[in-house]
Amino acid sequence: MHKLLILSDPAGHYRKLIEEAHLPDLMIESTPTSGVDIVLGSPGLIKDVLASLPALSWVQSTAAGVEALMDPTLRRDYTLTNARDVFGRLMTEYVFAYLLAHERQIFQRFKDQQARHWNSERLGVLYGKTIGLLGVGSIGAEVARTAKFFEMNVRGYTRESEECKHVDRYFHGDRLPEFANGLDYLISVLPNTQGTRKIVNAELLNALPQHALFVNVGRGSAVDESALLDALNQNRIAGAVLDVFEQEPLPEDHPFWGTPNLLMTFHTSAPSLPEDLAKLFIENYKLFHAGRPLKHQVDFIKGY
Amino acid sequence: MHKLLILSDPAGHYRKLIEEAHLPDLMIESTPTSGVDIVLGSPGLIKDVLASLPALSWVQSTAAGVEALMDPTLRRDYTLTNARDVFGRLMTEYVFAYLLAHERQIFQRFKDQQARHWNSERLGVLYGKTIGLLGVGSIGAEVARTAKFFEMNVRGYTRESEECKHVDRYFHGDRLPEFANGLDYLISVLPNTQGTRKIVNAELLNALPQHALFVNVGRGSAVDESALLDALNQNRIAGAVLDVFEQEPLPEDHPFWGTPNLLMTFHTSAPSLPEDLAKLFIENYKLFHAGRPLKHQVDFIKGY
Repeated sequence: MHKLLILSDPAGHYRKLIEEAHLPDLMIESTPTSGVDIVLGSPGLIKDVLASLPALSWVQSTAAGVEALMDPTLRRDYTLTNARDVFGRLMTEYVFAYLLAHERQIFQRFKDQQARHWNSERLGVLYGKTIGLLGVGSIGAEVARTAKFFEMNVRGYTRESEECKHVDRYFHGDRLPEFANGLDYLISVLPNTQGTRKIVNAELLNALPQHALFVNVGRGSAVDESALLDALNQNRIAGAVLDVFEQEPLPEDHPFWGTPNLLMTFHTSAPSLPEDLAKLFIENYKLFHAGRPLKHQVDFIKGY
Repeated sequence: MHKLLILSDPAGHYRKLIEEAHLPDLMIESTPTSGVDIVLGSPGLIKDVLASLPALSWVQSTAAGVEALMDPTLRRDYTLTNARDVFGRLMTEYVFAYLLAHERQIFQRFKDQQARHWNSERLGVLYGKTIGLLGVGSIGAEVARTAKFFEMNVRGYTRESEECKHVDRYFHGDRLPEFANGLDYLISVLPNTQGTRKIVNAELLNALPQHALFVNVGRGSAVDESALLDALNQNRIAGAVLDVFEQEPLPEDHPFWGTPNLLMTFHTSAPSLPEDLAKLFIENYKLFHAGRPLKHQVDFIKGY
């Protein structure tokens, strides 16, 4: 018999969805008892109970980002799987919501409406534009697939992988400025790892065209926030859309709040749907129960 | 030798694009001379010269809507072709810009930002939602294809055609209320014809769920504007996004301007790209020159 602990905000919802699947040999525990060998939940909650679960064998994260569990002082003697495919679609909707809002100038059109000004000037389109993806994992791949659907040109910057067929051109290593040159959109979907810290710095931002829009749906740590602030204040790029920040919630006195060409959301780009995550857990549990390799295993060295 | 007259705002741009194609037996005229047998341009400009072109054989409209040429007092002894495929992609970008903005509440998030309020409440997604298309011609078909890409359910209301494979379920005739029932989004891409006048009336609007959003990218004549105003003011639907109106430009004292749950743009949903339209003209000219049937012929009886 396996014992599952659920550590998540909508824990009751997950419990119901998992119970309905009638999984074999599975008991759901309400507290971190010593027999618990499986945990499903958010990394931030799980890290606090790791030490009290001697039988722990597998953790299924409900998030894509698992940096809370990457702290080298924490144990790594269990299989960690994260949520991948489920976020790609949602984050992609977010990215394209803001790309399209930018092209169609929907805030400006609203101002025109308030001023009763029939402004029929020609607006922009995505078709034919060039998007650059910092990171092409499962989320980046979904953004790339959607960009291709809209007939955009797609560049990808990755450490080494070139797996996504929707990317027209890959860049690696020190070719970041070349990657950035000529982009209409720079999208970061990078996780928080050693290799990604402040990768969006002054040099990269300076390599972008002045009309470029930067969107961050990965992790705030990938951005040098003061360099971005300078680029925005000096209009060296057209704007930024940030869902994630170095510190969250963003401190009330942070200059980002009042920067005019910056739109921010509040870590909401991928509203996790318990239904999707429960489905992933159920699929992985069946593999686990059969002693087979799990889907979306995290490499503790790489951090993703 | 064929003689072409170009009647369009960016006439010089069209001339250059067409000259570059080195089409056989084609001369471009600058004025409506008696030898002109081909006209390329916008219907509103063309209708005024129809009577002065005795040799007229073919008109290529740069617009999708050709109602200016449907007036029964005007001649119909020529082949009329309109622009179709070129607008589908652009209007689709427009429609999805506003659908995504609605789901992601991007105006509300901007207010949160201005109030320095870290609002991380869960936002909506397109995935799984139901969209209903009033009219499934080439533009509606492109909206349907995109809706399917975003994994939405697609309903189509047409006079009789059921050709688009991206529509899950078709409705015709008096089944409008059934079509509207349960829609998250109602999109009109209807042209201005006898059969479409005020089809979006109180009955149809009442059949929509209260959370539904109405988007009009077709023609303003398809909407009973006072019924829509009532529905919006009484919050019987969530909102409307209008690109087209019964009268354009919209009169300055029209109540639409100040309706809070209404967003308007100004007949800008499909910014026509001369490159795309010139390509269509060139393709059609080659067919014309070869004596073959032209693409996108308009039926003067149906009006589209």
